[in-house]
Amino acid sequence: MDTSAEPPTVGYGDLVLIYIDERRRHVVRVEEGRVFGSDKGTLRLDDLVGLPYGSRVKLSTGVEALVLQPLLDDLLSLAYRRKSQVIYPKDLGFILYIADIAPGKRVLEAGIGSGFLASVVASRLRPDGRLYSYEVREDMASIARRNLETAGLLDMVEIKVADVRRGVEERNLDACLLDMPDPWNALESVYEALKPSARLVVFVPTINQVERTVVGLERHGGFVDIHAVELMLREYQVKEGSVRPATRMIGHTGYIVYARRV
Amino acid sequence: MDTSAEPPTVGYGDLVLIYIDERRRHVVRVEEGRVFGSDKGTLRLDDLVGLPYGSRVKLSTGVEALVLQPLLDDLLSLAYRRKSQVIYPKDLGFILYIADIAPGKRVLEAGIGSGFLASVVASRLRPDGRLYSYEVREDMASIARRNLETAGLLDMVEIKVADVRRGVEERNLDACLLDMPDPWNALESVYEALKPSARLVVFVPTINQVERTVVGLERHGGFVDIHAVELMLREYQVKEGSVRPATRMIGHTGYIVYARRV
Amino acid sequence: MDTSAEPPTVGYGDLVLIYIDERRRHVVRVEEGRVFGSDKGTLRLDDLVGLPYGSRVKLSTGVEALVLQPLLDDLLSLAYRRKSQVIYPKDLGFILYIADIAPGKRVLEAGIGSGFLASVVASRLRPDGRLYSYEVREDMASIARRNLETAGLLDMVEIKVADVRRGVEERNLDACLLDMPDPWNALESVYEALKPSARLVVFVPTINQVERTVVGLERHGGFVDIHAVELMLREYQVKEGSVRPATRMIGHTGYIVYARRV
Amino acid sequence: MDTSAEPPTVGYGDLVLIYIDERRRHVVRVEEGRVFGSDKGTLRLDDLVGLPYGSRVKLSTGVEALVLQPLLDDLLSLAYRRKSQVIYPKDLGFILYIADIAPGKRVLEAGIGSGFLASVVASRLRPDGRLYSYEVREDMASIARRNLETAGLLDMVEIKVADVRRGVEERNLDACLLDMPDPWNALESVYEALKPSARLVVFVPTINQVERTVVGLERHGGFVDIHAVELMLREYQVKEGSVRPATRMIGHTGYIVYARRV
Repeated sequence: MDTSAEPPTVGYGDLVLIYIDERRRHVVRVEEGRVFGSDKGTLRLDDLVGLPYGSRVKLSTGVEALVLQPLLDDLLSLAYRRKSQVIYPKDLGFILYIADIAPGKRVLEAGIGSGFLASVVASRLRPDGRLYSYEVREDMASIARRNLETAGLLDMVEIKVADVRRGVEERNLDACLLDMPDPWNALESVYEALKPSARLVVFVPTINQVERTVVGLERHGGFVDIHAVELMLREYQVKEGSVRPATRMIGHTGYIVYARRV
Repeated sequence: MDTSAEPPTVGYGDLVLIYIDERRRHVVRVEEGRVFGSDKGTLRLDDLVGLPYGSRVKLSTGVEALVLQPLLDDLLSLAYRRKSQVIYPKDLGFILYIADIAPGKRVLEAGIGSGFLASVVASRLRPDGRLYSYEVREDMASIARRNLETAGLLDMVEIKVADVRRGVEERNLDACLLDMPDPWNALESVYEALKPSARLVVFVPTINQVERTVVGLERHGGFVDIHAVELMLREYQVKEGSVRPATRMIGHTGYIVYARRV
Repeated sequence: MDTSAEPPTVGYGDLVLIYIDERRRHVVRVEEGRVFGSDKGTLRLDDLVGLPYGSRVKLSTGVEALVLQPLLDDLLSLAYRRKSQVIYPKDLGFILYIADIAPGKRVLEAGIGSGFLASVVASRLRPDGRLYSYEVREDMASIARRNLETAGLLDMVEIKVADVRRGVEERNLDACLLDMPDPWNALESVYEALKPSARLVVFVPTINQVERTVVGLERHGGFVDIHAVELMLREYQVKEGSVRPATRMIGHTGYIVYARRV
Repeated sequence: MDTSAEPPTVGYGDLVLIYIDERRRHVVRVEEGRVFGSDKGTLRLDDLVGLPYGSRVKLSTGVEALVLQPLLDDLLSLAYRRKSQVIYPKDLGFILYIADIAPGKRVLEAGIGSGFLASVVASRLRPDGRLYSYEVREDMASIARRNLETAGLLDMVEIKVADVRRGVEERNLDACLLDMPDPWNALESVYEALKPSARLVVFVPTINQVERTVVGLERHGGFVDIHAVELMLREYQVKEGSVRPATRMIGHTGYIVYARRV
């Protein structure tokens, strides 16, 4: 029988998810004297310390809220700064799967953008994997760095302000992820960095970029098993006796191209 | 500069991916004296030993093939026995993401089926996480066990031939994944096993099951942030100057319901 | 050689489409002394009389606009009052096709709602077909009547404020269209009204209604060739070198069930 | 009260739909002495004469079949010869709607292919509309002619073996439909043939053709209100308590571009 871990409790320095309702969810850090405020009322964060996660608390107005431990997913959507277009869960998940991101893997990424993909990948590489993130823009690198720090993931990532198209220093990597406007210009760098059999995964918003990437991969000759796909996610509204997809949906985020280095 | 690992080479006992073309891909274990055969020719596996992965070899007919290191994805589709409906990559990836599967996590699954989801999850938990898989059918458990062994993942999984609906022994788990016909009957077990804030993810093929699961979650009271989604994957055919989605696509695999324990 | 019709010109009493840009399009009736106003300027409608359709005119501000002849599609979206959920073009088109709506056909509809489907159907039945529209709510019937009048289609439609579930007077009809909450309660009426071989087409928003309708059709025994489908429409953003689906899309409008009376 | 038409009965020369089950449906012409044969048994067609449509008959083996009046839809899928890629119902319906195909309209089409779109359109133009179909290939024109004759629609269509890109003779047409590889080369012809305000609708299989068509329309200057869309149709499998989309679906047929002549 496994009864291991004690139920975790809130401590100073923790990021907590204050969940009021589906639309009111906030991630805040518990600091001495700090007060959380929302349109539904306020909450003294000192009062949370020592409470088990999952507890119900009352805001100043009497409205109830839940105190939850944020998942990485919550941090991304609620605590991260975003300065660039971000990749959505449906695409992040598929990338995790198809690039075979797992503990101990050494992975290349370019560019890092706001660090969403980097965070999701880095969190899956512990304890001894590593993410090498190339980014040409210093300002983006710096936002990504701050975001990774928020999530406690900065130690897993080596951010390099450099142009992946001009070559990379790493060799025999387990996977490579490109989220940049012209991935076809980075194929030789990727080829040199990846170990044979490993996957390259590319994320691009337009079909023209898909075309150029696939044509580039075929011309390069060092890649096989080339695929281009698109994922659509539909959310459902479920009430007893009345189930239907939501009226609005995200019609497009981007395409995913993947291939294998030989 | 990082130049770490040597390019890996084929050794006896390895599973290798012999890639002839898009449709002819085989995973075989390299054993002394063994000969690989396909409609395009044969290959003595002894000849592969010592070759770097990514090498091109010639079959008996002169046809070329690539010798690649299989990813888990290849094992699932080419080396695993399947006796039940399996979950597809688009859904596997989303589950990995939304359940926050990562190194060190302790996860519950029911049922194990042919072990596809178990493998994908287990491979992401090293070194010190653990997957607890409940399965009512001994025959399925046994197929799953063999498949996990093929992938070298059996040590990460504790398979229990038991009914999750009657309760589970684990507590304070980080995630729970249900792939069973009546997940609504397992909600109390899940509630007791999950730590507060953690996610339950359910995979079901029909919309009626989505309805009953969501209604069950709402009635139970111990879950919030309940969502039901569906993912569609479209593959593209890309030739220069002629890009279009493939004519045929998978129209449906299943729905994913997820929620959070409070 | 066919040079038939003269290019049509604007006359008093005409409905005209004033097209300023993609988002500013208005249908107005040309009446003596009337002035059209928009946030981009005004236009004296008297000045349009005698102009060929397709002309460019200038608003008071110098901004250009096009004077077009509205299609039925424009009337529906710009000139019709709507008091109920309406059916979208993607669904209207499929209904037209699958119900084999064509000149001379005699068609049953229930309920009429705001008259969108009625208009689209009625406009396809000239000169000697007929649409029989049952509607239980007098207020809806009256909105529909006004809308059909706007489009000049009222002469093709016989609106009956009556409950289709209690039976209909018509026999040997060519098609029947149901857009009501409980179509399964109208199946016997439909069976009696339709001629053998003809199609029933049902539009419903939830999957539960699809289930009850299909099960109802199977139990009734007087229908074969039963199908349930759903259409999704995706709009593309096309710029040279940058083509992608629009970020937002309509995720759901409704399901279409169709079958054949035997 | 309307009791009009007598229920129709089978006569010599009629095309009848013999419906055995979902997969066994055949359209045959009733001729003296002719015998219909299928893997489920045979049927003397003389025996059908005088039966009301909708009747159940027995094949030689005792298996039951239904004798139905074919809709145009049945003729297209069961009686038409096809020598080219055809347009599917979901797209045909949307084209009917968006091009405002209705009785009395004069419509241009190029090319005619196997005549599927021509048939669907022509059947909606009676009594005094007309379809002008340009087709460069005499062999296609001839298959289309035969198909239209089968459906009794040949009198509504004027087939011209000519290249639409070199100009058309008609003027002031109500709609124009292009189903050809390079629609951007026919825009000037279309512009001259269409009356102001009327819609051009283009059907193309690849996204590259969408791009060139939209860019061509914008450059031409004689078109506004330009849209590019795609329709996806999903079929559902409905059993009581178990509703789900079909596993397989058509992932792609083509894109529809539409615009308005000014």
